[in-house]
Amino acid sequence: MLDSQIKKQLRDIVGENHYKDDPEALITHSYDGTPMLQSMPDGVIYPENTNQVSAIMKVLSQHRIPVIGRGSGTNLCGGTVPVQGGVIMVMHRMNAILEVDMLNLTATVQPGIITKQFIEHIEQLGLFYPPDPSSMSISTIGGNIAECSGGLRGLKYGTTKDYVLGLEAVLASGEIIRTGGKLVKDVAGYDLTKLLVGSEGTLAIVTEATLKLVPPPKYKKTMLAMYKDIYDAARTVSKIIENRIIPATLEFMDNPTIRVVDDFAKLGLPLDMAAILLIEQDGDQELVERDIQRISEICREEKADSISIASTPEEGMKLMTARRSAFTALARLRPTTILEDATVPRSKIAEMVLEINRIAEKHQVNICTFGHAGDGNLHPTATTDARDHEEIHRVEEAFAEIFEAAIRLGGTITGEHGVGLVKAPFLEWKVGSVGIELMKGIKQVFDPHNILNPGKMFAKESRRRVVIDRG
Amino acid sequence: MLDSQIKKQLRDIVGENHYKDDPEALITHSYDGTPMLQSMPDGVIYPENTNQVSAIMKVLSQHRIPVIGRGSGTNLCGGTVPVQGGVIMVMHRMNAILEVDMLNLTATVQPGIITKQFIEHIEQLGLFYPPDPSSMSISTIGGNIAECSGGLRGLKYGTTKDYVLGLEAVLASGEIIRTGGKLVKDVAGYDLTKLLVGSEGTLAIVTEATLKLVPPPKYKKTMLAMYKDIYDAARTVSKIIENRIIPATLEFMDNPTIRVVDDFAKLGLPLDMAAILLIEQDGDQELVERDIQRISEICREEKADSISIASTPEEGMKLMTARRSAFTALARLRPTTILEDATVPRSKIAEMVLEINRIAEKHQVNICTFGHAGDGNLHPTATTDARDHEEIHRVEEAFAEIFEAAIRLGGTITGEHGVGLVKAPFLEWKVGSVGIELMKGIKQVFDPHNILNPGKMFAKESRRRVVIDRG
Repeated sequence: MLDSQIKKQLRDIVGENHYKDDPEALITHSYDGTPMLQSMPDGVIYPENTNQVSAIMKVLSQHRIPVIGRGSGTNLCGGTVPVQGGVIMVMHRMNAILEVDMLNLTATVQPGIITKQFIEHIEQLGLFYPPDPSSMSISTIGGNIAECSGGLRGLKYGTTKDYVLGLEAVLASGEIIRTGGKLVKDVAGYDLTKLLVGSEGTLAIVTEATLKLVPPPKYKKTMLAMYKDIYDAARTVSKIIENRIIPATLEFMDNPTIRVVDDFAKLGLPLDMAAILLIEQDGDQELVERDIQRISEICREEKADSISIASTPEEGMKLMTARRSAFTALARLRPTTILEDATVPRSKIAEMVLEINRIAEKHQVNICTFGHAGDGNLHPTATTDARDHEEIHRVEEAFAEIFEAAIRLGGTITGEHGVGLVKAPFLEWKVGSVGIELMKGIKQVFDPHNILNPGKMFAKESRRRVVIDRG
Repeated sequence: MLDSQIKKQLRDIVGENHYKDDPEALITHSYDGTPMLQSMPDGVIYPENTNQVSAIMKVLSQHRIPVIGRGSGTNLCGGTVPVQGGVIMVMHRMNAILEVDMLNLTATVQPGIITKQFIEHIEQLGLFYPPDPSSMSISTIGGNIAECSGGLRGLKYGTTKDYVLGLEAVLASGEIIRTGGKLVKDVAGYDLTKLLVGSEGTLAIVTEATLKLVPPPKYKKTMLAMYKDIYDAARTVSKIIENRIIPATLEFMDNPTIRVVDDFAKLGLPLDMAAILLIEQDGDQELVERDIQRISEICREEKADSISIASTPEEGMKLMTARRSAFTALARLRPTTILEDATVPRSKIAEMVLEINRIAEKHQVNICTFGHAGDGNLHPTATTDARDHEEIHRVEEAFAEIFEAAIRLGGTITGEHGVGLVKAPFLEWKVGSVGIELMKGIKQVFDPHNILNPGKMFAKESRRRVVIDRG
């Protein structure tokens, strides 16, 4: 609980009803999309505009009270869990699309807009915003910016950072900065825009974003290729790219994922396959048809057991929606679902999937793997039970080995979910101790009293590298 | 001159012949592509590998000696002029293409490789590296990374930062860091890769870069549209984009530029036109033909006086080469050529060109304007004479007003040339005093003793905003 004087100051800024600290408000903001993490905030505040955010930050800064910016809390890294208490700043009231500029192909939005609502609005205007995290029906653009969200279209179109041209943000001090603009090119000083994207709420509170829009693809087509051997599926991925074809989507599901997705979405998928590739190409019709034709040939050359091409856009959409539901489907299996995003160069995905399976077996835990094969971004997902401490310990050991394997294969500990709380002990494995020191230095420049989302990204103690048992 | 003990230490690292401080070496490294700037270094060093760079940095750091990384010195912002003396570190010996990874579509290179040589090598392998600064026949990839170089293909393909996936770099302390990797997605901590790109040698010396490659376009076509009214040309630019067509290249030349380019390249351009657009589309043949057809219609609708479509790739190449020669052609007019890169949202280019002309007339100076209209990146270029101090003063006043106008129209002081020495007094206009403080803080984290390219990006005194005379 905050001091009553401070609470009064905050209520004076946002109005009586927009600062809450009743048990319901505190409990519902004590956790996010990440399993097994909970910590109570002291209050929850809902600012209406940038000036309010600035005024709030001045109060919190003066009293050294932690503040955690939050959209819909769908992140999977514990990014919005208030581990040191403080105030959760929920951005949902700041949800306006301020402008769509048809001449410059940009949109300027507030951070609280729901991703899917934004995308639908843009599509109605005949434009396209590609980043499409699986959580997009509830996630916010502000949350996507904080985490640099990816999605199924990342291979061809890139991720959130490729679409953020400019930001307005409030520093810990309450000062308001503006970076970039409606500019494709801007090299005036260090790129603070790209530094803020993916900074997980540790450097500033984003209050406005100018996003790049692109012309929409005119046509798309979806196909499935099914494999009895996981290596054949992985080789197909590399071979498609090697053939200079960049599909819009190139997704992978292993056998356990196929089973649960099919049970959930009733697609009639063959349950005896080792792996399925879900492939979508978009663009002009003649090119899409030609690419899908060529991709089918490659799948056959690489011994796909069967190939099916969606005959209608609706059928294609159904397949994509089923893939997006993988997390939800897996979550029905057991009480706790831990979805990770170890990422490797795309040439290494077969090796990585086999490593994951070996590690899961070694620790006797259930791990399904699916993900964005085209960009090497895999989602090994453990289905477990948080109440079984001994099993959870084994799951954690397994994931530590999985991150280790990803690094060893030239990859990273997180491709699109962020570091947050859960990956913090592993960050040093990827960026080294000098990298950590540089990042901590940057944090200190933006937030000298460490009030912006403290306890995230940088762990008190880095986890020691595990010794991989290659036996 | 450095102390003889320090010189010995440096020669012990690189070998006797690779540290120079004879007058020829010092004078040839006292200036770069920027006119009217010269400052003598104390020495010039040519490292052979990353370990030598690290060892050199340790020596220079210990003695607080400035170090300026340099490729071919083609930059236009005074970025490599050693304003505080010190050692120029020339990267030409580190010019290897270390790997082209055909499965992951990446190339790993040393910084000293010449951009055009790299591009040609990649194209021979059937791949494509889009960033194409006009200086590419002599510039290096390391220089392009330091300045975040753009080029003629930036509209469709982006600039250097969109193609740098990972870096190896040496800090001021001599410590070696590695960022990113062969990974399309990596959100492990702050994005140090994008922070280093465009940091103008002020944060670290880049010693290795992993670059993203893409499938090459199969076909391209070039066309010219000529206008009697500059506004019609500008409206055409916006209307092409509004029609959801993103050309590979969309270049603008005003009348004075047309005249000198034609005189230089003997193209037979009509010399009475107010503006010419040079447009290139690439991709699959049927789409290119369709886009060029539609673009021609738009040009006609917007009252182009005449339109000519290159009938052969050679003719197209000739037009593009002529455009690339604009700087060289203008440089023949008078002893001193000052090429700037004020950038505005693309919807504002007509307004910006008229502002430039108004400002040039007000100050009675010669300014030609050409540039990358599609991304609002204009190159107002003054032809003048450095020996005429009074005229140079008027040119400087004119450029200050041009930057002011760019900012007022939602633009920036530099789209692709960097801040360096020449834009440093204006940086605050774009990023604000808080932005400057953040950037200085970041600089301090990477380079606490300010030995990496000191005196750049941050001016001792910011220039006061000029009062625009709207009369």
